[in-house]
Amino acid sequence: MTLTPTRDDKFSFGLWTLGWNAQDQFGGPTRAHIDTVTAVNKLSELGAYGMTFHDDDLFPFEATEAERQTEIDRLKKALADTGIIIPMITTNLFSHPVFKDGGFTSNDRAVRRFALRKVIRNIDLAAELGAKTFVMWGGREGSEYDAAKDIRGALERYREAVDLLGDYVTDKGYDLKFAIEPKPNEPRGDILLPTVGHALAFIATLARPEMVGLNPETGHEQMAGLNYTHGIAQALYSDKLFHIDLNGQRGVKFDQDLVFGHGDLQNAFSLVDLLEFGGKDGGKTYTGPRHFDYKPSRTEDITGVWDSVSANMRMYLLLKERAGAFRADPEVQEALLAAKVDEVNTPTLNDGESYDALIADRSSYEDFDSAAYFDGKGFGFVRLQQLAMEHLMGARG
Amino acid sequence: MTLTPTRDDKFSFGLWTLGWNAQDQFGGPTRAHIDTVTAVNKLSELGAYGMTFHDDDLFPFEATEAERQTEIDRLKKALADTGIIIPMITTNLFSHPVFKDGGFTSNDRAVRRFALRKVIRNIDLAAELGAKTFVMWGGREGSEYDAAKDIRGALERYREAVDLLGDYVTDKGYDLKFAIEPKPNEPRGDILLPTVGHALAFIATLARPEMVGLNPETGHEQMAGLNYTHGIAQALYSDKLFHIDLNGQRGVKFDQDLVFGHGDLQNAFSLVDLLEFGGKDGGKTYTGPRHFDYKPSRTEDITGVWDSVSANMRMYLLLKERAGAFRADPEVQEALLAAKVDEVNTPTLNDGESYDALIADRSSYEDFDSAAYFDGKGFGFVRLQQLAMEHLMGARG
Amino acid sequence: MTLTPTRDDKFSFGLWTLGWNAQDQFGGPTRAHIDTVTAVNKLSELGAYGMTFHDDDLFPFEATEAERQTEIDRLKKALADTGIIIPMITTNLFSHPVFKDGGFTSNDRAVRRFALRKVIRNIDLAAELGAKTFVMWGGREGSEYDAAKDIRGALERYREAVDLLGDYVTDKGYDLKFAIEPKPNEPRGDILLPTVGHALAFIATLARPEMVGLNPETGHEQMAGLNYTHGIAQALYSDKLFHIDLNGQRGVKFDQDLVFGHGDLQNAFSLVDLLEFGGKDGGKTYTGPRHFDYKPSRTEDITGVWDSVSANMRMYLLLKERAGAFRADPEVQEALLAAKVDEVNTPTLNDGESYDALIADRSSYEDFDSAAYFDGKGFGFVRLQQLAMEHLMGARG
Amino acid sequence: MTLTPTRDDKFSFGLWTLGWNAQDQFGGPTRAHIDTVTAVNKLSELGAYGMTFHDDDLFPFEATEAERQTEIDRLKKALADTGIIIPMITTNLFSHPVFKDGGFTSNDRAVRRFALRKVIRNIDLAAELGAKTFVMWGGREGSEYDAAKDIRGALERYREAVDLLGDYVTDKGYDLKFAIEPKPNEPRGDILLPTVGHALAFIATLARPEMVGLNPETGHEQMAGLNYTHGIAQALYSDKLFHIDLNGQRGVKFDQDLVFGHGDLQNAFSLVDLLEFGGKDGGKTYTGPRHFDYKPSRTEDITGVWDSVSANMRMYLLLKERAGAFRADPEVQEALLAAKVDEVNTPTLNDGESYDALIADRSSYEDFDSAAYFDGKGFGFVRLQQLAMEHLMGARG
Repeated sequence: MTLTPTRDDKFSFGLWTLGWNAQDQFGGPTRAHIDTVTAVNKLSELGAYGMTFHDDDLFPFEATEAERQTEIDRLKKALADTGIIIPMITTNLFSHPVFKDGGFTSNDRAVRRFALRKVIRNIDLAAELGAKTFVMWGGREGSEYDAAKDIRGALERYREAVDLLGDYVTDKGYDLKFAIEPKPNEPRGDILLPTVGHALAFIATLARPEMVGLNPETGHEQMAGLNYTHGIAQALYSDKLFHIDLNGQRGVKFDQDLVFGHGDLQNAFSLVDLLEFGGKDGGKTYTGPRHFDYKPSRTEDITGVWDSVSANMRMYLLLKERAGAFRADPEVQEALLAAKVDEVNTPTLNDGESYDALIADRSSYEDFDSAAYFDGKGFGFVRLQQLAMEHLMGARG
Repeated sequence: MTLTPTRDDKFSFGLWTLGWNAQDQFGGPTRAHIDTVTAVNKLSELGAYGMTFHDDDLFPFEATEAERQTEIDRLKKALADTGIIIPMITTNLFSHPVFKDGGFTSNDRAVRRFALRKVIRNIDLAAELGAKTFVMWGGREGSEYDAAKDIRGALERYREAVDLLGDYVTDKGYDLKFAIEPKPNEPRGDILLPTVGHALAFIATLARPEMVGLNPETGHEQMAGLNYTHGIAQALYSDKLFHIDLNGQRGVKFDQDLVFGHGDLQNAFSLVDLLEFGGKDGGKTYTGPRHFDYKPSRTEDITGVWDSVSANMRMYLLLKERAGAFRADPEVQEALLAAKVDEVNTPTLNDGESYDALIADRSSYEDFDSAAYFDGKGFGFVRLQQLAMEHLMGARG
Repeated sequence: MTLTPTRDDKFSFGLWTLGWNAQDQFGGPTRAHIDTVTAVNKLSELGAYGMTFHDDDLFPFEATEAERQTEIDRLKKALADTGIIIPMITTNLFSHPVFKDGGFTSNDRAVRRFALRKVIRNIDLAAELGAKTFVMWGGREGSEYDAAKDIRGALERYREAVDLLGDYVTDKGYDLKFAIEPKPNEPRGDILLPTVGHALAFIATLARPEMVGLNPETGHEQMAGLNYTHGIAQALYSDKLFHIDLNGQRGVKFDQDLVFGHGDLQNAFSLVDLLEFGGKDGGKTYTGPRHFDYKPSRTEDITGVWDSVSANMRMYLLLKERAGAFRADPEVQEALLAAKVDEVNTPTLNDGESYDALIADRSSYEDFDSAAYFDGKGFGFVRLQQLAMEHLMGARG
Repeated sequence: MTLTPTRDDKFSFGLWTLGWNAQDQFGGPTRAHIDTVTAVNKLSELGAYGMTFHDDDLFPFEATEAERQTEIDRLKKALADTGIIIPMITTNLFSHPVFKDGGFTSNDRAVRRFALRKVIRNIDLAAELGAKTFVMWGGREGSEYDAAKDIRGALERYREAVDLLGDYVTDKGYDLKFAIEPKPNEPRGDILLPTVGHALAFIATLARPEMVGLNPETGHEQMAGLNYTHGIAQALYSDKLFHIDLNGQRGVKFDQDLVFGHGDLQNAFSLVDLLEFGGKDGGKTYTGPRHFDYKPSRTEDITGVWDSVSANMRMYLLLKERAGAFRADPEVQEALLAAKVDEVNTPTLNDGESYDALIADRSSYEDFDSAAYFDGKGFGFVRLQQLAMEHLMGARG
């Protein structure tokens, strides 16, 4: 297997990621923004297949119609020149002062109406550019103070907004689905739909739940101390992994947006294993873009920016290679069997068994030897973990 | 308003809470267990209205049928003597070695069958004792190592189990609903259904979602750094607040199970405000038991145990008093209005407005003055928060 | 007691706090910067006694000598007009790109030399303006990647820098002490001297440890899940509380910089209790400025900014009032006695007792009744905590 | 290089680690305790060189003199039979109810005296068995409630205790040093000396600081979100790394005590790199025992226990191999040079340079080109990190 990315790998990057000027909460820019055309060309050269953007990445919030069109045209030409596609587009409802209390759920109704208009306009652009996924990160939907936000009302407004947009896309006949991106906090003290779970639950309340899925980001789940692979698995369980944002995070702290794999490495390993080999036949569980939503560290100049672009893809391919070897190793297969990992896929009840039959089965309870689980019937999970770590470290064959 | 609890306040306590012998991960018991009858009598005396328990709290895992019945009879007599009720029962699928990899989702199928039988047996007892809610905390459903658990398979088994139990309760005609209690970790490295959100999402996949709701615990959400009041609000939004576990937690760390209000005080204030005054008419949003799932600190002897029981109820009543005053204060009402807190309950679209009409409304976008939100149109959230803190501190009138 | 701040309360604010333009990691400014003279005048009017600043707050990094002097002169006039003083000054070694890998500990030696020069220049200004404390927050001293920073070398350079500055201040005869401000992370992935403890340990390695103390910030300690009151107590224990930065934080997450008391309220209560009444005679343990290092929320306009300034001072005064009442309450005094809280101040050994004498004392071990601590000898900590919470809530008299 | 442990690797294990019966906060034992002699024999067989223990691990708290001696004699015989040594001993001041508010810092003076006696007795045993290090983990020294503990008084008592023990060891002529083990919380809400930094600062206040160092544990620092490698580096900087406790932790949560390397893998890599190759000549920075303080997961039976013992050692040796290859790789050396990692070891001032000379050097400030750091002078840290990750994954040669 090669570690050189190809378009078949479906790697995509946000224009705002490599293009970030490195201004953060405590300091000014250390780099210039990267121009759209440069970004497209370089991504093409490095092996990516797609680029994504927020409207405000491509043209400023205050852009005139003409300025906006110029940038769109420049982008289209670059895409045509390189074959790079735009698999996903997203809207910025968080940077401008108007969104200081959120977009879809701002306490200020006029802002909510403005937000809807901004998104509709950007949905049209997404359709025009052939994007299949429209991501919604509601980073300003939330609060710092418990009394300042009626959460149930805000969820109602969130629902109203997504339902309206679902109607719009449906009526227009756009081939576009929505993907909500959860985050627990930052920039708001607490953000609405803080985790994969909360967003899944919200989707179940929508008028068109089938049109709306998730775009979970590695670091966002890990900022709540949650296991990202578990979150992705639950999203898959609910058929809602519509898009994915890969990056790196080192624990419960501010949003670091490191290169994928540069954070919690073992969790990155199990994630790639799940995405690439978790299907029933050992195949992929997710076939969409592998999208990197990260930031090249503020210490880097343009050379470091491009190095970081490549590092994301290389980490993914390396982890895929390692996960493949893990799955293929007979000793691993034996250890998985001993740990009964696959037995959880066998229904607990026999085929057609009723609860009455279960109750009548004395072996299930009255004659069950629960004492055998003391000093016996170990699962061998530590051995399995050690095998996983050794494969991750390339230490087995 | 009085701060002396009455049965109308619907305060309930787990037998395992006040009855805890104070053995923890790093030390042996510092107190004897409290006998069931003593617990019932004392709770009655102190003003509670209900007691709850796991099967293994009332009689040991290994109890014979006769021993089990003796304890049930003793409990029934105490209930009859005092008028204390059993509003909720729950099953222990986490203490015995047999459950070392979980109950409903153990990799070991025989364990899963045993777990179902144990729960069915306890559901019968719940019905017999008149409990209306059956809580399920899956503290051992999870993993330490990513490769050791097939999360999608485990969720399937979880669903199979809850669906079977739903059938059972329905067929038996029991007046009983289920309430799932999420927790992110401890004792397992990562627990399935880690937050309110994940559990809500899971419920949406069930065969009988209407029978299953949540029992969110203060500390469990806060262990993931999440806002508990927000979680309760989303549970209410989904009509799934079937029961509630109140306690105290001081940040992202091990499960502290402090007295309610002895952890994050301002969040406890907003929680009580939501429960007691968050209804459309300023009434209650939740009318079930106010259940305390806490642990009297290991430093305490029996005097401290009873002090801690009273402290939970007193904190709740004090917070209710403070929240009532907050809502009644004209200056607060004015500040809420200025902060447009209630405006989030006004639909974003006009009555009957289509997206076409919205798009045609130039005031919503083309003529909207977004620049006015720079250096203007502040929300006054800090002032509102200061008023909330002053009411919490009893500093206004 | 009044809740109106006076200059005797010694409240001070950073120019960068109220003056913040509300630009954050995910959005642009929502307010204009506040001019220095306006800030001084308004602080004076609202009851503060001091203002503080980084060099780059007063004049831009690129300011000419003349521009710099103009701003200094404007400040001086405002101070003279109002009586506001500058009790503390600090230097910005974190915003400009040159400091992207730190100031005193940048891998780039030329940057380290530049940083020293910038600080020396600002020390001269501090002396000229009569500041008594020079705060050093090394927010960029750290790393994202373990291999990228030789921590021991970086600590050596940190020490070299502080030692040099100590020599400079000493030789110049300036009446100025240094105060190091710890922080665990953000903006760097891991920051050097991450907590009060690490900074205290570092100070013990300096050539002039007596000149260097701490400026602990509420939220910074709480971002590591540490108890801020405990940290301040250890700083006092080591005679190193040279300055203090008060604000609010809601748990382990990004640096929130809320108003003091708007975060962990009970910890704010114990902190003010320690500062105001923790002395041997029940007096103050710290007599320096009560400095607020916070940010008015991005949702606020200028009205909210001034409201937030007042909120900080009012919260402090309210907490002081509550702590005073707590200390004066006879029931509290009795509960403290029962909990043996003051007994920890009695030496464990008798006056002049040797270890031989201790070993010879059979009552200390051989005849000691350790069994009495089971089901007895409870400390009554929960009762004490409840009393504290009730005083905090103004619920006792 | 071989991955089979030998005694030269100096691997040691606590008797309480492999011997743990797997009882935790939420469940009973799943295994029997392992007998001391079995433990010694098996450790010898698996390649360890040492075993350590708390007094209460070897003989129960309530053991008679004869019972105690029997266990000591059995241990000595096993040591003689195998050549296993006891490099470290520690005392349990946390399990028995008497220590419910701590040992050295309990509010109850009689408990403090008892604790000192218990430790003295165990120090004698440590000397008898040839241990060179005496570890003190004060897991119960702390509080849940801010008002319940006078922190400064408690630190005074801590100091009194350690000073007395230092006198005792000195006078007895024992070849024994103390190592304090920090932890932020659990079992107490907040523990005294919560981090490496706080403990270092405390040591600086002792009468015999040279006798007291640290025993930092991987998971304990990571429970506060701190970088363990950074903490070890600061301990080395202060010459206080007297012992080390290696294990695995997955983020800010309860104390997991996983196998070393089964938690934050990249931090384990940098830690081993520092320990084995961080010396000035590329040699070791620490030559003492590599001690594993972990718990075999509760899911494991005796087979899993021994697998976990081996896994710790194998992970260490694998990481050592990887770190060695990282250091030897010319491309890594080039990347380190480009990132100026070693330049931080060059003093910022020239040899003999005064601050006057620095001020006179116009190149350091007046003529310094700070603008060059915008869009230039990147450090290449991401490239370096990528090289580190690839070496960790065995992906380079």
